[in-house]
Amino acid sequence: MKQIIPLLFFIIFSLSSLKAQQRVDELPLQIGVMQKGKQNAITDVLGVEVGHTTLIRGDSVRTGVTAILPHAGNIFQEKVPAAVFVGNGFGKLAGSTQITELGNLETPVILTNTLNVATAMDAVIKYTLKLPGNENVRSVNAVVGETNDGYLNDIRGQHVENKDVIAAIKNASSGKVAEGNVGAGTGTIAFGYKGGIGTSSRKLPEDLGGYTLGVLVQSNFGGVLQIAGVPVGQKLGNYSFRDNLLNNVDGSCMMVVATDAPLDSRNLERLAKRAFLGLAKTGGIASNGSGDYVIAFSTAKEMRIPYKITKKRLQQELVPNDLMSPLFMATIEATEEAILNSLFMAETCTGFKNRTIKALPKEEVLRILREHSALKR
Amino acid sequence: MKQIIPLLFFIIFSLSSLKAQQRVDELPLQIGVMQKGKQNAITDVLGVEVGHTTLIRGDSVRTGVTAILPHAGNIFQEKVPAAVFVGNGFGKLAGSTQITELGNLETPVILTNTLNVATAMDAVIKYTLKLPGNENVRSVNAVVGETNDGYLNDIRGQHVENKDVIAAIKNASSGKVAEGNVGAGTGTIAFGYKGGIGTSSRKLPEDLGGYTLGVLVQSNFGGVLQIAGVPVGQKLGNYSFRDNLLNNVDGSCMMVVATDAPLDSRNLERLAKRAFLGLAKTGGIASNGSGDYVIAFSTAKEMRIPYKITKKRLQQELVPNDLMSPLFMATIEATEEAILNSLFMAETCTGFKNRTIKALPKEEVLRILREHSALKR
Amino acid sequence: MKQIIPLLFFIIFSLSSLKAQQRVDELPLQIGVMQKGKQNAITDVLGVEVGHTTLIRGDSVRTGVTAILPHAGNIFQEKVPAAVFVGNGFGKLAGSTQITELGNLETPVILTNTLNVATAMDAVIKYTLKLPGNENVRSVNAVVGETNDGYLNDIRGQHVENKDVIAAIKNASSGKVAEGNVGAGTGTIAFGYKGGIGTSSRKLPEDLGGYTLGVLVQSNFGGVLQIAGVPVGQKLGNYSFRDNLLNNVDGSCMMVVATDAPLDSRNLERLAKRAFLGLAKTGGIASNGSGDYVIAFSTAKEMRIPYKITKKRLQQELVPNDLMSPLFMATIEATEEAILNSLFMAETCTGFKNRTIKALPKEEVLRILREHSALKR
Amino acid sequence: MKQIIPLLFFIIFSLSSLKAQQRVDELPLQIGVMQKGKQNAITDVLGVEVGHTTLIRGDSVRTGVTAILPHAGNIFQEKVPAAVFVGNGFGKLAGSTQITELGNLETPVILTNTLNVATAMDAVIKYTLKLPGNENVRSVNAVVGETNDGYLNDIRGQHVENKDVIAAIKNASSGKVAEGNVGAGTGTIAFGYKGGIGTSSRKLPEDLGGYTLGVLVQSNFGGVLQIAGVPVGQKLGNYSFRDNLLNNVDGSCMMVVATDAPLDSRNLERLAKRAFLGLAKTGGIASNGSGDYVIAFSTAKEMRIPYKITKKRLQQELVPNDLMSPLFMATIEATEEAILNSLFMAETCTGFKNRTIKALPKEEVLRILREHSALKR
Repeated sequence: MKQIIPLLFFIIFSLSSLKAQQRVDELPLQIGVMQKGKQNAITDVLGVEVGHTTLIRGDSVRTGVTAILPHAGNIFQEKVPAAVFVGNGFGKLAGSTQITELGNLETPVILTNTLNVATAMDAVIKYTLKLPGNENVRSVNAVVGETNDGYLNDIRGQHVENKDVIAAIKNASSGKVAEGNVGAGTGTIAFGYKGGIGTSSRKLPEDLGGYTLGVLVQSNFGGVLQIAGVPVGQKLGNYSFRDNLLNNVDGSCMMVVATDAPLDSRNLERLAKRAFLGLAKTGGIASNGSGDYVIAFSTAKEMRIPYKITKKRLQQELVPNDLMSPLFMATIEATEEAILNSLFMAETCTGFKNRTIKALPKEEVLRILREHSALKR
Repeated sequence: MKQIIPLLFFIIFSLSSLKAQQRVDELPLQIGVMQKGKQNAITDVLGVEVGHTTLIRGDSVRTGVTAILPHAGNIFQEKVPAAVFVGNGFGKLAGSTQITELGNLETPVILTNTLNVATAMDAVIKYTLKLPGNENVRSVNAVVGETNDGYLNDIRGQHVENKDVIAAIKNASSGKVAEGNVGAGTGTIAFGYKGGIGTSSRKLPEDLGGYTLGVLVQSNFGGVLQIAGVPVGQKLGNYSFRDNLLNNVDGSCMMVVATDAPLDSRNLERLAKRAFLGLAKTGGIASNGSGDYVIAFSTAKEMRIPYKITKKRLQQELVPNDLMSPLFMATIEATEEAILNSLFMAETCTGFKNRTIKALPKEEVLRILREHSALKR
Repeated sequence: MKQIIPLLFFIIFSLSSLKAQQRVDELPLQIGVMQKGKQNAITDVLGVEVGHTTLIRGDSVRTGVTAILPHAGNIFQEKVPAAVFVGNGFGKLAGSTQITELGNLETPVILTNTLNVATAMDAVIKYTLKLPGNENVRSVNAVVGETNDGYLNDIRGQHVENKDVIAAIKNASSGKVAEGNVGAGTGTIAFGYKGGIGTSSRKLPEDLGGYTLGVLVQSNFGGVLQIAGVPVGQKLGNYSFRDNLLNNVDGSCMMVVATDAPLDSRNLERLAKRAFLGLAKTGGIASNGSGDYVIAFSTAKEMRIPYKITKKRLQQELVPNDLMSPLFMATIEATEEAILNSLFMAETCTGFKNRTIKALPKEEVLRILREHSALKR
Repeated sequence: MKQIIPLLFFIIFSLSSLKAQQRVDELPLQIGVMQKGKQNAITDVLGVEVGHTTLIRGDSVRTGVTAILPHAGNIFQEKVPAAVFVGNGFGKLAGSTQITELGNLETPVILTNTLNVATAMDAVIKYTLKLPGNENVRSVNAVVGETNDGYLNDIRGQHVENKDVIAAIKNASSGKVAEGNVGAGTGTIAFGYKGGIGTSSRKLPEDLGGYTLGVLVQSNFGGVLQIAGVPVGQKLGNYSFRDNLLNNVDGSCMMVVATDAPLDSRNLERLAKRAFLGLAKTGGIASNGSGDYVIAFSTAKEMRIPYKITKKRLQQELVPNDLMSPLFMATIEATEEAILNSLFMAETCTGFKNRTIKALPKEEVLRILREHSALKR
């Protein structure tokens, strides 16, 4: 009897649901124990803007660009504290060593495909050189991450162009973030299903600081998919090393963490490391071939670092170490949910060489989740 | 006389409990998708030995020592490749920088409580200096990890002595490993319940290398407990940040990874990093106050590093990068299961200041797992 | 026509100058105590090739490209062990995280100016994709370093093109290496004088391993110049912080270390770190604004890492830790001498905005060295 | 004729000098271009105190303890920002990972011999637990460095005791610092001569921040000694790898950097790295067997980190990146001079097994320096 109620709920839910793609928070599914932000997106962090350029052309081009801006101003002139954590470094992240050395970020963060990192770097450099106020700038640390969409996309064709990168930056906005097969996630694959862009956020209660923290991911990796802990990958018979084969395992995950908590680079690096734990909770294993990187930054106004030093001291107000743990947990939860959103929002895609990668089979997944009592009533 | 009470308690308890403690693999519960080793313990890795000294005295002493030996010979004379990964470094791990620099381990790995790291270091040094063949040795890199058992144990009393450390080394053996409230796990707490020592292993299929990999943990940390993905901590109403409080969050997890796969320190460091992902899967968050460290070593005979260099070249046969992913996944699974074993095998403990920490309520837990269809059959 | 002026200038200059530029080893000056290699160049390491593209155009273009190849074959298919050390990370080195993770290098190392790193990356990617045998390659870790030549060069014009990078790779050869105002050193400045490309090598005696080790630098940094220990910068009244000003201090030094010693990435990273010590001996201080990076690789055939894994084990023969120190010292000496060669071989240069940077005043320098009994005989 | 004046000066100087040991600044010798602090010692940094316990007993005990206190208060309750840089990690530095994770130091820094690190750790723990106000403390990150004095000292006898460590802490004071064969430098060897404790400081001009920075070293390493750039080791025929042997090369250098500049751990780590450059300028090569570590901390009151968090924000005023370079140069110069002071102040020592290590032969050294015009007139 007890079992019937969720079943009924599920049927009604399924019928009433017309959208093929739904975010995790549209389902009766809860990831973690913390409160979500308003949009449940990285853009819940005040000032953060996201823009996409999606390139779907002909049979073979399935790629794009995603831009994440820490604020809408001239980032080079008003840098933000930042850090990088390398989960597994089989990737081409540009700009990491300067972030680590100086503890700051001076450009938008760009995500794209592996063989277009140089294109994106050059576009960011040109974009930054041209910004009003940057007339004398001679050094720009462009930050560009990537994953390899070469199964669905003609990656060797290097189809991303300068203008595509600029467009992603230019069309960046706050508010709702498009997810799934968009921008840098257009051609990516996760856990054997169509991956893509996903985002999520957490809002700490006032007693724990009241800060907002958001994560955006570009999912393109393997492992044994878990959704809210349920071993969905196994149940679907689709997971790494099944039949003792080195299958479905490689790929990467780029993760971007933003927060309005005033943190310096040391504590941002610690945050970044926790995103790696969020990845683990979805069943990711950071395989040998993965480029799993996390870029974390703080948007707190009081932490901005001006390009032109006018005073001999920088004044800062920081979250002390002892109050960091809630932010760690928020990072883990938001990363886990962002990855799941990337899967739930992605659509079946046919691309390069007529290859097809299916979207997560939502009905089956919901059935499995229900069987594991993972759906809320 | 004071000594007799816990002893009596222990006898009565043992008699009355027919399997009060069970390992995860005695339950109809499966962690991950890979095959376990024969004993499902770190000692499945050929040569590895584990010994404990458990100190339960009077009302206040609840601590001990656990020793992990990569082989039964003179480790200083026949060093093994090793690496360290720092998940969160609020801890006192001794010996890490030399392991990282030279890529090897030259002593047993000792685990104990936070304030007795020096005691254990000194014991390991004295032990090593006295070994036959080490008469001229003037430098020993003692490797000692710890977690803080100061809630149940009078930690400020520093009750571990030199002889306790030596005893743990001397009684080390292959075969079954005692778990729960033993050795360095005697007084530790995990997820609000009694933690302790736990172990698990994985055996790769021949096609993926056929290697054995084992993990031993000293669990003493917080978060939101997940067992096989099921949000048990939430269901039990016992988790970090419940009611918006900074509760149950701090503590540490020491993790030791052993494998017979011939790996050098670079790939061992990558393995070590994956243990951190295993911790995440149990709900650990690597809070600010945690000392989450992983020490990984290879027991492969062909990788041993002699103290006395007799040839100008070291010959090695290594697993190439491309074949590492199965070992990564094995590390994640074995770490997750080792942590769960530490909880399932631990018993309720009353100690310092008459404080009590309960064992995981197994019946309730099994009920929850059953409700989430996480039990096999 | 515009092109002819510098050409004419160059011819006249060359005719009139009988050895205006001399290498350190042509002077009665000895750096360190170890024996030099045959050419005293990075190309003394068997297989290493170096190529330059020098861009001197009109009034404002003073830049270029330098390519260092670990061997003449398909590097992607036969990778070499490698490591990176970040002395100071205010720079845009591309490819560092993958080198660190996988311990190898799969492309030529390219040096250029700060704002053309993306250009060089893209060229290396295109070059690698097109190599016979790489038809299915979808991921390339292009390694590109840079220093900022924006004082003498119109760096914002980004004058390096794809073809310039390819040309540097294509014209790479073993044997003598052009130094001074060539390739990536065309427009660089060191210690207030014209810097550029420099190289040097050391050959260990057989009893210490008999290995050859070479260094190539792109010098572009400040400090207080020391030549063979003599405080030449002070004597010339040209050094950082003179008159309590933040002058002449910033800039960068890219350092590439090659050796035929069979080393894995761990010991190559240790080598790389010693190049930073060599920089110190010339008076470099690794200022805040410097991008001081070292890339080290081994050319030993037995250490090559095939792209296509055909066996489950990689066989290696390695130099043990205990025999590394002579290679450390060789690195320090060769780096010091390479930096000095870059200064001694550079010529006065007038460039962007009609700015001029003088060559090291050799006569004065030799006088100072003589006064300090630093010249042999 | 010009040559005669320094000669005369030298003769007069030699005659008038009665002290066998003289600091570098008592000689007509200048290291670097920056101004020294008042005492030319680490204690020039306001609040820093240094204490020694020197153990010279019978034929075989030549060891000791040196304690460096960032301030005279309860350091555990008022932590200071700190960082560690590992030059070469063949050493047993205790406490490094927690400093790196949390960015602070909570105990005195203790230096001693290799096999007594545990003794010193335990002493620091006991000392800290007993301090008024620390009654509830259950975790102490004792920071202990070491070098190996086992040639002159019966190191296997582990002669340092708890009380010796406490004594070094208790007798710590500001003002003049004893150098040479004292404290942890009692039995150490550098460049084949008697090494020991040395210190030096720099005071930046107001325009560059006006900060004071001091360094203290425990010198025990090899290489090719350079004094003010002059190749003294070569001239004396006493240097590493002479006659192609692996001689005189190993050993370690512990370096402690203190400054009153308000720096966080990121910029302190950068400072720490520059001490490694200072070591290079004396001819150190950071050999395979060396434990070359730098611990850097800031004493700026506004940067103190209270143990008990009372506010949700820590207010800080920091030196911005762009103003760090003068502090970098000060670190290099003070480290170089501190190492030289350790040599100039050390005395010939006969110890274990009747072995003797001679003090630097000052007259010969001064002659060599004079011949190289390195002495001021």
